[in-house]
Amino acid sequence: MHASPTCTMTMGDHGGAIGYLVGEENRGMLCMFTMMNQARLAVGLEGVGIADRAYQQALAFAQERRQGRAIGSKDDVSDAIIVHPDVKRMLMQMRALTGAARTICYATAVALDVAARAADAKARAAAAARGALLTPIAKAFSTDIGNEVTSLGVQIHGGMGFIEETGAAQHYRDARITPIYEGTNGIQAIDLVTRKLAANDGASVWALLDELSDVVKRVETSNDPAFGTTGAKLRDALASLERTSKWLLERVASVPNDALAGATPYLRLFGSTLGGCMLAAEALAARDPGEGNGDPQRYVALARFFAENISVQAGSLERTVIDSAESVTGADAVLLG
Amino acid sequence: MHASPTCTMTMGDHGGAIGYLVGEENRGMLCMFTMMNQARLAVGLEGVGIADRAYQQALAFAQERRQGRAIGSKDDVSDAIIVHPDVKRMLMQMRALTGAARTICYATAVALDVAARAADAKARAAAAARGALLTPIAKAFSTDIGNEVTSLGVQIHGGMGFIEETGAAQHYRDARITPIYEGTNGIQAIDLVTRKLAANDGASVWALLDELSDVVKRVETSNDPAFGTTGAKLRDALASLERTSKWLLERVASVPNDALAGATPYLRLFGSTLGGCMLAAEALAARDPGEGNGDPQRYVALARFFAENISVQAGSLERTVIDSAESVTGADAVLLG
Repeated sequence: MHASPTCTMTMGDHGGAIGYLVGEENRGMLCMFTMMNQARLAVGLEGVGIADRAYQQALAFAQERRQGRAIGSKDDVSDAIIVHPDVKRMLMQMRALTGAARTICYATAVALDVAARAADAKARAAAAARGALLTPIAKAFSTDIGNEVTSLGVQIHGGMGFIEETGAAQHYRDARITPIYEGTNGIQAIDLVTRKLAANDGASVWALLDELSDVVKRVETSNDPAFGTTGAKLRDALASLERTSKWLLERVASVPNDALAGATPYLRLFGSTLGGCMLAAEALAARDPGEGNGDPQRYVALARFFAENISVQAGSLERTVIDSAESVTGADAVLLG
Repeated sequence: MHASPTCTMTMGDHGGAIGYLVGEENRGMLCMFTMMNQARLAVGLEGVGIADRAYQQALAFAQERRQGRAIGSKDDVSDAIIVHPDVKRMLMQMRALTGAARTICYATAVALDVAARAADAKARAAAAARGALLTPIAKAFSTDIGNEVTSLGVQIHGGMGFIEETGAAQHYRDARITPIYEGTNGIQAIDLVTRKLAANDGASVWALLDELSDVVKRVETSNDPAFGTTGAKLRDALASLERTSKWLLERVASVPNDALAGATPYLRLFGSTLGGCMLAAEALAARDPGEGNGDPQRYVALARFFAENISVQAGSLERTVIDSAESVTGADAVLLG
């Protein structure tokens, strides 16, 4: 951001400024949002890009840096830190969060392309609604995880993360602006709850949940033990997302402050459930010889990690949204006491 | 850290170095850990200190900066952003996480003082075990939340968080080293599981759980509606902590890699449950006229927020530890694929 060509502009200091109308009258805000929606998806991808670079670097470092020995090792030399389960967990978390954010951004891009190009008007309208629903999630979830992933990257590097030549800290710094600009992630969450969820009484959300539920069914009927508890975890997460969506939809209309209080945890719940289902769909495609993606073991293991470690937070997030609105809206006793 | 007087020392470049024995033979590591354990608590408090400064600054900014209007406002002027529920949530999260970490650090310090000074040898031994158990939690939980809280501080400042004169970004940078030095937080988690939990077959943990369970009972029998669902949430969290501790204790002995894979989420589960119970104990003390702390409403609201928003994650963390070891230890298919 130091290299970003920003500046302060002051207009009207000497007796008023002259304004020129650009485009049609009263359409300015709408035009601005054409730019803004594209920028939101682009910033989401910025989160994915920084996260992936941080992962690649941490993975390489963990394979090179030696410290301690694997449990049960009889060798007299220390092992690369990637053998330690706690380091494996951090790397998997980086990889899984990044992979999920990428699928969400790609699904958003596909929806926007279909909305612009499909021959059928009904398909265009459905895709436009899908793109509108996914845009705030693509922006906020991807940039939130961009910060988490780059922080894990520093952590894997240990003290070396603080040596500038290593480069890990750079990703961490670069990522921090992304939850702020083009609408803070709090604004994305409020947009998701008050506009995108509330549009057509939740129709876009129910349509998406149906598709995701079908993915989970296919995981379950695959009977592949490599999926572990993926099916059960995603089914629970979908149920949490559905109940929380219904509760919020009712509150948006009746007690809007309660809905606003739950907006940020709701977006996280949405991203964690959606991301888990999308990675599972990727894994199913990789298992399908007709699709020709190959390497199914890798995709299944990644989907499983995400479901068992990230999507599993859905139940807690549901409770946070539904039970804790009063603890937020009544916070003045603490904050202003 | 730029001002920290660190340097590289190279010894033995010219035909070997001369070593001097400091202290008794074969007691060096033990002496080093006297320093290290004190340093761990001190670094935990560094996390608390940075977090509290970030909170104070964000709170002041949120009361000054105007943007948007409160729901239902008829005024033509914008409101201070502290009226927005999403900002309230961020401020409460900062305050609650910081308060919980502070109580954990203080409880650790009390235990270490009693261990050194109590007249009764049995009391000294019990306090020493308590201090040993709490030290890795005080270090890792407090510094993890130091990073989360300072990041929320930047977020509340929005674009202003990136203007260096504002000072919010400084806290965020200062906090990042604390999960790394004096033993990374991964090392703290491994110490907690393999040494502190495993000592005396979990005796220190069961003794602490009994005390915390008593706090929850007192919350429930207070029948104070201002506690909301605090009692139920903490009871669930304690049950998760107990089940997860038992599972890990068994695995430390039988499949150590499974225990190591769950160490980090276990430490978070421990901190979130312990912190919630400690804030509830503070609130009970504030409600007791005999204790004379006053302002009970404030302490009860803070304990409630923590229980309903943070301690509620215990169930998910339990599932992560117990169900996901295989997804971590079997990660090579993804990482090395």
